[in-house]
Amino acid sequence: MSLPSFDDVCRAQDRIAPWIHRTPVLTSETFDAMSCAQLFFKCENFQKAGAFKSRGAVNAVFGLSETEAKRGVATHSSGNHGMALARAAACRGIDCTVVMPETAPQPKIDAVRGYGGQIVFCEPRNAARQETLDAVIADSGANFVPPYDDARVIAGQGSCAKELLEDVPDLDIVIAPVGGGGLISGTALSARALSPATRVIAAEPANADDAKRSREAGERLVEDAPNTIADGLKASLGELTWQFVATEIDDILLADEAEIVEAMRLTWQRMKIIIEPSCAVPLAAILRHRDVFADKRVGVILTGGNVDLQRLPWA
Amino acid sequence: MSLPSFDDVCRAQDRIAPWIHRTPVLTSETFDAMSCAQLFFKCENFQKAGAFKSRGAVNAVFGLSETEAKRGVATHSSGNHGMALARAAACRGIDCTVVMPETAPQPKIDAVRGYGGQIVFCEPRNAARQETLDAVIADSGANFVPPYDDARVIAGQGSCAKELLEDVPDLDIVIAPVGGGGLISGTALSARALSPATRVIAAEPANADDAKRSREAGERLVEDAPNTIADGLKASLGELTWQFVATEIDDILLADEAEIVEAMRLTWQRMKIIIEPSCAVPLAAILRHRDVFADKRVGVILTGGNVDLQRLPWA
Repeated sequence: MSLPSFDDVCRAQDRIAPWIHRTPVLTSETFDAMSCAQLFFKCENFQKAGAFKSRGAVNAVFGLSETEAKRGVATHSSGNHGMALARAAACRGIDCTVVMPETAPQPKIDAVRGYGGQIVFCEPRNAARQETLDAVIADSGANFVPPYDDARVIAGQGSCAKELLEDVPDLDIVIAPVGGGGLISGTALSARALSPATRVIAAEPANADDAKRSREAGERLVEDAPNTIADGLKASLGELTWQFVATEIDDILLADEAEIVEAMRLTWQRMKIIIEPSCAVPLAAILRHRDVFADKRVGVILTGGNVDLQRLPWA
Repeated sequence: MSLPSFDDVCRAQDRIAPWIHRTPVLTSETFDAMSCAQLFFKCENFQKAGAFKSRGAVNAVFGLSETEAKRGVATHSSGNHGMALARAAACRGIDCTVVMPETAPQPKIDAVRGYGGQIVFCEPRNAARQETLDAVIADSGANFVPPYDDARVIAGQGSCAKELLEDVPDLDIVIAPVGGGGLISGTALSARALSPATRVIAAEPANADDAKRSREAGERLVEDAPNTIADGLKASLGELTWQFVATEIDDILLADEAEIVEAMRLTWQRMKIIIEPSCAVPLAAILRHRDVFADKRVGVILTGGNVDLQRLPWA
């Protein structure tokens, strides 16, 4: 597997432009005052299918040859990547199968089906997930589009920071959450190429801090089933994304569960926008580590807004 | 009391510009598909103090002479107008007193105080409210800034539709909620002047339909304490706003309580933005009266996003 380059990000940006939103950048005097920084929020919660994941999914789907595309795509996901891939496949008019655990929440199941995706359920174990996906692919010949450890996906996610740096050029810091690492890897690619002086910081739940511990250990550590409200960040780094996290980002900052919930609630209350728990981790990290951000111009990637409105963490 | 003119709206827009946001206009493919129309959402939920009310309040406060301003401002409000006036007064560095019923919800009390406003509580009866306000004004000489039935306030609210029509010029319809009528009056002023072919439609809760019944009766009817979740729209028309509603708007469409809650929930879920119940009434009316809006370009004023996140109507 080879690493994507910034040229791949540029090609991805052109390829996906007709199928995604160029999302707006919002500011908030309240959060500027709270952080003593100037924050620029890149609103991927307004992205197609409600999350930045549409970028990588569309890039992968529209990068397939005609022959490949005819066989459709498949993935495993209980979250935003499955929705984004189902939508991307529908845009191209090809089949999409998503392997999901039987325990997946009903809103996620409905969303995948709403975009026309087929769901194959598996037992809620990692091994079962892979076996089920292998069987789907053996049967249909579908192209596997991994949720993050994939050059096409990383390049697609990199288009988000590229847009942000085009719209707000002179950022001192750009911060994004790290789970599997696709977004932070693409973010590092774009920042290094477009704005070498910009520091790239990852934000991670303290309860799922495999990326931070991997950097400290100097090797990729895999965490089994961490427990955090930031459910989009439970995945561990992959082989490709580890290489970016190991060498291309400047720091990883943690936030605990209560801080994540409070940052999410504050964002709803003050910015009047819906963000999901994973999306609140960078702001939580900023408010916890104010010294790092004071007097800086900071780009904050708001990753997604897919929330079950019946189950809010503060209710 | 004389009616404001479109010139007053233009002067208001210049006067308030340094103190308010020029709010963005968002679109939604989901709602376009659901309504068979093209909808342009003017996001006053992102406005300062969370609602369009900042426009009228800032216009009134910054229109005072230096001598008048020294005496401060006062109003009665258990909602967004009180918050907006407290903030506007703080911007000018003058005192603000808000008369609120003892039963006002704690988040509203906190918000007024957060902007530096003084609160004087009264018994939760209309008569007590006016008596208390009269006493405040007799004591301090403060300038009364009414929540809607005031030329300065109407002119300020009119700047919202003016911005919308500048950004999206060729609208077939503009729709806004009607409660006391300040916003719809200002909207009519701007639409008539800038885009005479644009129809101006008011949306009203079926449970608080005094504006619709007033038009049918040909006289201003006052409704006492209507019961609707759209708490910003419980007020009845005033003398000035009735004149606009009687002659300057094209229609009033109703939505019932369940439709309002569903439109609010759908907006959160699909557009990823926070709107309050009153703000959902126009979308609820659009989805109920699809025939009126089909194939039309429709400007929808989203009025505010101040919600108690602990008490959601669908939880």
